[in-house]
Amino acid sequence: MNEIIMKPIGYVKTKRTEAVDDNWGQYESIIELCPEYSESCFDGIEDFSHLEIIFYFHKSDKTFIGSEHPRENIKYPKIGIFAQRKKDRPNHIGATIVKLDKKINNKIIVKNFDAIDGTPVLDIKPVFIEYLPNEKIEQSEWSKDLMKNYW
Amino acid sequence: MNEIIMKPIGYVKTKRTEAVDDNWGQYESIIELCPEYSESCFDGIEDFSHLEIIFYFHKSDKTFIGSEHPRENIKYPKIGIFAQRKKDRPNHIGATIVKLDKKINNKIIVKNFDAIDGTPVLDIKPVFIEYLPNEKIEQSEWSKDLMKNYW
Repeated sequence: MNEIIMKPIGYVKTKRTEAVDDNWGQYESIIELCPEYSESCFDGIEDFSHLEIIFYFHKSDKTFIGSEHPRENIKYPKIGIFAQRKKDRPNHIGATIVKLDKKINNKIIVKNFDAIDGTPVLDIKPVFIEYLPNEKIEQSEWSKDLMKNYW
Repeated sequence: MNEIIMKPIGYVKTKRTEAVDDNWGQYESIIELCPEYSESCFDGIEDFSHLEIIFYFHKSDKTFIGSEHPRENIKYPKIGIFAQRKKDRPNHIGATIVKLDKKINNKIIVKNFDAIDGTPVLDIKPVFIEYLPNEKIEQSEWSKDLMKNYW
C-alpha cells in the first residue's frame, strides 16, 4: 500500500489561533461537520461524556523523523518521534480525548481540546471505558514535566 | 482543504487474519516500522507502559454515513457513525490504546490490539495520563453490552 487519501469530516472553531505549548484547558471548541454529513451522524452521541477526536496538524509544514529533545528543550533527553506527541510527525495526525459539552444540530461543543481554529477533523469516536487502560499507566519523567501546565 | 495524503509508517503482524467481533485480548501483535524509519524513532518508548496506535482499516471497502444499529444488531438503537466505533466509517481510521510489551530494534510487541494481520499503521503515540479523562466516564448502555466479550 502506498498512499491513503483522507478528507476532513469537519472543522474546529475556537478562539485559539496559534499552536502554543500550554494552557489549553480554558478553551471551548466547536466541531462542525462538513455539509455532506447530516446531523444524524451524531445520533446517540450525548450518551457519551467523552469523545476522541482524530485531527490533522494542518499548520505543521515539517516532518521530524528520528530522535530529538521534546519541545527542543535540552533538559529533556532525545526521544524518538513515536515515543513523543510532537505535531511535526509523519502523517501529522493528532488525537485527543475531549469532554462533550453539548450537541447542536451538526455541531458539537467540546472542552479540553488542544487543536487550533481551522483544524481539519478526520474522525470522531466515542470513548468506551473498555478501550482505556485497566492497568497502572507508566510514563517517562520528561512527559510529566512537559505536561505540568498543558491544560 | 480537500485531500490529505498519508503513508503507512509500519505494518501489523499478528495471528489474527480476519476482523471478527470479539476476543481480541488473547493476541499479541508486532508492529514493524517501514524501512525509511530507523529504530531511533522508538528511542525512549520503553518508559511508557501504553501506546496509542492510529491505523487504517484497509479491508473495509464501505463507508457508512448516517445512523445505524451497531453491529447491525437490531437490539441496539440506531447510532450515528460518529457516536460508534464501527470500521466502515469516513476515512477508515482506527485508534486503540495498547500495552507495550517490548521493543526489539525497529519492532514493538504489543498486547490488546484489535487490528488484523497486515494492517497499515499511520501513527504511534505514547499515552500520557494527562491526556486521559480525569472525570467519570459515561457511555451508552449498548456500548457496554457490545464490549462484553471484546477483549
